[in-house]
Amino acid sequence: MVKKVVSSLGGLLLLFPAMAFASEPTPTSVLLGVNLLWVMVAAILVILMQGGFILLEAGSTRMKNAGHVAGKTIFTVGLGSLIYWAVGYGIAFGENGNLFIGLGDFFYTPSMTITDDVVPSSLFWVFQCAFAVISLSIAWGGFAERAKLSSYLIFTIVFVGFIYPVVAHWIWGGGFLAEDGAQDFAGSTVVHLSGAMAALAATILLKPRIGKYNKDGSANQILGHNQVFTALAVLLLWVGWFGFNAGSALGVDDGFFGFVAFNTQLGAAAGAVAAMLITWIVLGKADITTMLNGALAGLVAITASCAFVDPWAAVVIGLVAGVFVFFSMKFFEKMKIDDPIFALSVHGAAGVLGTLANGLFATPELVAYNGVGKAGLFYGGGWEQLWVQFLSVVVCGAFVFIVSFIVLAIIKSVMGFRVSEEQEIIGLDLSEHGAYGYPEQMKKGTNLNA
Amino acid sequence: MVKKVVSSLGGLLLLFPAMAFASEPTPTSVLLGVNLLWVMVAAILVILMQGGFILLEAGSTRMKNAGHVAGKTIFTVGLGSLIYWAVGYGIAFGENGNLFIGLGDFFYTPSMTITDDVVPSSLFWVFQCAFAVISLSIAWGGFAERAKLSSYLIFTIVFVGFIYPVVAHWIWGGGFLAEDGAQDFAGSTVVHLSGAMAALAATILLKPRIGKYNKDGSANQILGHNQVFTALAVLLLWVGWFGFNAGSALGVDDGFFGFVAFNTQLGAAAGAVAAMLITWIVLGKADITTMLNGALAGLVAITASCAFVDPWAAVVIGLVAGVFVFFSMKFFEKMKIDDPIFALSVHGAAGVLGTLANGLFATPELVAYNGVGKAGLFYGGGWEQLWVQFLSVVVCGAFVFIVSFIVLAIIKSVMGFRVSEEQEIIGLDLSEHGAYGYPEQMKKGTNLNA
Amino acid sequence: MVKKVVSSLGGLLLLFPAMAFASEPTPTSVLLGVNLLWVMVAAILVILMQGGFILLEAGSTRMKNAGHVAGKTIFTVGLGSLIYWAVGYGIAFGENGNLFIGLGDFFYTPSMTITDDVVPSSLFWVFQCAFAVISLSIAWGGFAERAKLSSYLIFTIVFVGFIYPVVAHWIWGGGFLAEDGAQDFAGSTVVHLSGAMAALAATILLKPRIGKYNKDGSANQILGHNQVFTALAVLLLWVGWFGFNAGSALGVDDGFFGFVAFNTQLGAAAGAVAAMLITWIVLGKADITTMLNGALAGLVAITASCAFVDPWAAVVIGLVAGVFVFFSMKFFEKMKIDDPIFALSVHGAAGVLGTLANGLFATPELVAYNGVGKAGLFYGGGWEQLWVQFLSVVVCGAFVFIVSFIVLAIIKSVMGFRVSEEQEIIGLDLSEHGAYGYPEQMKKGTNLNA
Repeated sequence: MVKKVVSSLGGLLLLFPAMAFASEPTPTSVLLGVNLLWVMVAAILVILMQGGFILLEAGSTRMKNAGHVAGKTIFTVGLGSLIYWAVGYGIAFGENGNLFIGLGDFFYTPSMTITDDVVPSSLFWVFQCAFAVISLSIAWGGFAERAKLSSYLIFTIVFVGFIYPVVAHWIWGGGFLAEDGAQDFAGSTVVHLSGAMAALAATILLKPRIGKYNKDGSANQILGHNQVFTALAVLLLWVGWFGFNAGSALGVDDGFFGFVAFNTQLGAAAGAVAAMLITWIVLGKADITTMLNGALAGLVAITASCAFVDPWAAVVIGLVAGVFVFFSMKFFEKMKIDDPIFALSVHGAAGVLGTLANGLFATPELVAYNGVGKAGLFYGGGWEQLWVQFLSVVVCGAFVFIVSFIVLAIIKSVMGFRVSEEQEIIGLDLSEHGAYGYPEQMKKGTNLNA
Repeated sequence: MVKKVVSSLGGLLLLFPAMAFASEPTPTSVLLGVNLLWVMVAAILVILMQGGFILLEAGSTRMKNAGHVAGKTIFTVGLGSLIYWAVGYGIAFGENGNLFIGLGDFFYTPSMTITDDVVPSSLFWVFQCAFAVISLSIAWGGFAERAKLSSYLIFTIVFVGFIYPVVAHWIWGGGFLAEDGAQDFAGSTVVHLSGAMAALAATILLKPRIGKYNKDGSANQILGHNQVFTALAVLLLWVGWFGFNAGSALGVDDGFFGFVAFNTQLGAAAGAVAAMLITWIVLGKADITTMLNGALAGLVAITASCAFVDPWAAVVIGLVAGVFVFFSMKFFEKMKIDDPIFALSVHGAAGVLGTLANGLFATPELVAYNGVGKAGLFYGGGWEQLWVQFLSVVVCGAFVFIVSFIVLAIIKSVMGFRVSEEQEIIGLDLSEHGAYGYPEQMKKGTNLNA
Repeated sequence: MVKKVVSSLGGLLLLFPAMAFASEPTPTSVLLGVNLLWVMVAAILVILMQGGFILLEAGSTRMKNAGHVAGKTIFTVGLGSLIYWAVGYGIAFGENGNLFIGLGDFFYTPSMTITDDVVPSSLFWVFQCAFAVISLSIAWGGFAERAKLSSYLIFTIVFVGFIYPVVAHWIWGGGFLAEDGAQDFAGSTVVHLSGAMAALAATILLKPRIGKYNKDGSANQILGHNQVFTALAVLLLWVGWFGFNAGSALGVDDGFFGFVAFNTQLGAAAGAVAAMLITWIVLGKADITTMLNGALAGLVAITASCAFVDPWAAVVIGLVAGVFVFFSMKFFEKMKIDDPIFALSVHGAAGVLGTLANGLFATPELVAYNGVGKAGLFYGGGWEQLWVQFLSVVVCGAFVFIVSFIVLAIIKSVMGFRVSEEQEIIGLDLSEHGAYGYPEQMKKGTNLNA
């Protein structure tokens, strides 16, 4: 708001409030301001990633579900934010916590400004809230094209209010895995593996979509309806990931956030290239869906390690993730686990890979810089860090899977988890919302069972 | 441009010009730089919101008008920027103004750099220009699917050159409402209500679209063609709104901009949740369009109050806006006011709500911090601020509506405002531009009167 | 990563690492941090522009090629980034270079942090890498709808590994054109003209698409399939261009980057307006494609001159570019050069125009500020700078065209450059990737030869 300044007729000199408050800015206070600005920008970028998820999930599914898929993302981001404000943040970062859970700061009210060198916690909350709802959006991959809208509502409350914050507390909030020296810079485990494990629980309980498997057990491809959407989705996610990864430096300071961004770019690039080439070689055709998943797998894998490894290792991690995601997609399909958005492969498999990579590639210099854990196996650190990384994957993965499975099983038995066969066939746009998301195109007579 | 530095062979030390100019940076000069950077980022975010409007308006209308709807946004943003440069900025913020209008600074030429502690006004202009064309894009909601392209051209000139800047001057540029202590931090009234009042004038003069109302007065739903677009639109607007609201702090300073962002996130989230639930309860189906409008209504409502209220109040304001927008949509439809993009409900009704909310919820601490007006009714401030807020809504709303109505009525009588019935039926893509925006899909034989 | 801080129980005071490192921040070190932050933001914006290219190229082409067009952008951005890391950066900016080529810094490993006032080169690399792959994405305009996927792979390697970095070295990396005082602030020549010349070589070698020209030599319009995509593309590119242009100031410093942003907004706006009006006047219909190209042409043209000209000149340059692009589009069509995405007009013609504009409009003050070249003809600088600008256009344009032509001719003769007639008719989605990008819409029986 400009008013107070211009109307005081002080001219341009006073246009910016800065000049008023800055009677005695110090280098330290200004650095704090710079760091806050980066956290703000990073939080905005992570929220922008939801645009990527809208497009990725909508583009990977069928036209009859497009409005539902896109719309529910906005709804659950909204609901998740309120829940994280009321409960989740306090469980992750509440001051009166222990090694297993945080407590306090419910219905969080941040300080208005920086006072006495205390950071305005408002921006830290916005950044963390954005992470929580990203993990939630990953989980929706397992719900796609067949879960009831009401199950989204209930699961948002449980996941953002309890499941995710507990894992965040363990690794980032001073919990027991933090004490063990688990390295997960921006959340390969906390955000991506958690989301994927919830998706796994959901997809197992929901069973495959109608038409996904034939009676002889062979699988059909159910193609998504719009690859322009999925390609643009990957680009938006790639862009937002700079906020996700480099933003996790939580400040500009000595420029380390730039090094993190550098590794992020290499990991993503390597993932896309490796996935494209592996499909070209194995299938004889360069499959676009796999390539796009490769870019995302590279990003997911480098998320844990971006601050701990050298650039050449970032390339290796991305390449491995890109190849790995291809075989993971094949594996889950063979296992009769229907994973429409490939959340299990992109966020689960690559999330595990990325977390373990620290145990191999973490360099002594970067470990010392970050002050967390030990160097990796290839740098003379022995097996210790790899074990810690393995442990954090298993513990967090199991916790999220089990709690999600129980909650969703209760939903399933109490109120129903999956829409009826008829509803699934006509699509969730009509069955859950009463109108098509593409009314003009759908009424022309699409084969609804396509 | 890197050249001068690298070619001077000074090595990396000189790669960044900073090092050259920074012979004597002071904490104050650096803080000024940080604040400028935030204004730059915020301006970029507000311009990105036009991507949201492209998708929102195109997605909410029919395929036969999609190219027109999307394309005219770029055209009017371009034209509006030139007009704001030539005239509008001078009327809003020109130095030789009075309580009713600014004067000066036409064909604006900003200072090249900061000199003698004077802020480079270039960025202040870019930020304000972005606001002006946002208000314009809101107004287009009332023109949609039936106004002639030529009327967009004329109205852009009048709205950005005169109508909007006058209101901006009254509240932000030292005008009489500023003197009265009107609180409108980022423009619930200046930007959103102004746009909505112009849309109202347009939609009344244009009359409803063919097929919107039956002979017995009952209304038909004319569904938009693409809910993936509208959901992505809301996400882009949500993201851009951090520039809109937190950017209006015009600097990083003491971190207050983070508090504004915090409230913005809560207001948007609450709006989406409340709107979804109210349709679920009232209609038995969770309507996606209403939910999306609820998120936007929450954002519009919190725009005036984000810097003046506590977080819990931000949630309340968002919840009320989300419910309110649902009934407002019903109300305007019943009144036979055809509002294709819901500009009257989302930007008008919620804009009023948000402006009045300050009169109820503004806290003494935040009022003191901002130095504008008084505390609200619920905080012991009495009715005074509520009255000022009411006054600014009425005065600004009436001014924009009346002037817009007169201008558009003149357009209507002189050159025609609405396309012919035949043109409307075949769609504006063909009638105004000679080609479909979706040529492959349209030629397959859509029912053009759909 | 938050862990190390919170788990040390230091409370919010220690939440942000800043506080730890900032034992002795100085104004200079903090200014360095601010500048880094702007380079980070600018790099992210330039990467976001790839989202614009995905939508622009997909929207301007037909549905049967949409998945291919969108997907290959992600793939080539990935591959290009790896190549730029391995080779390209070293050729552009490697320390052991001469006037013609840089050498060194292959498989680039940046410093982890700022040490001893040396900038962390990580961010400089990310920014430059983003530029390189933008130039590449421009080149794809000439490949569209008929080149084999394998040719994209090979040409990415050559273009990002050699062609582009050589030009970048000549003008930005201390090469002979830099020594001559060539002014190209953000790359009208380096990025845009280079991309366009590669596109020209490709489109000449590929020959026009099936159905573009009739036997009598007359041209058919092959409309793109989605103008919502192309309009949104222009908006994303416009937004990203603030990173491109104002980011090229490589720092915040004295606020000059704001002046650059100001001129950028005016140039883009003028381009859109001029192109819309010229089609309206000449054709009697306001053509949306031309108008969108006008906005881009304004942006391309102001790219070289944004730091060297006054705002009124930015408007003039944009207006001329908008008119020019209309006639250029006509010219290339008449010349039987099939340019599906209008790369030759938007990036080529406007790139030349913008580079030459410096020779006319560069002001003495801005030339002195930037320390490159001389003032333009209209400001008493004589013909000298215009000659230098002309020379840089001719030399760079010829170099890129000739090398690209040779490389692509070799591809053509060795492995084939264009898909078979049958493959082109069924579309590249099927022929190159085995599945439609829009499977539900395509199977309804589009006329594939449309």
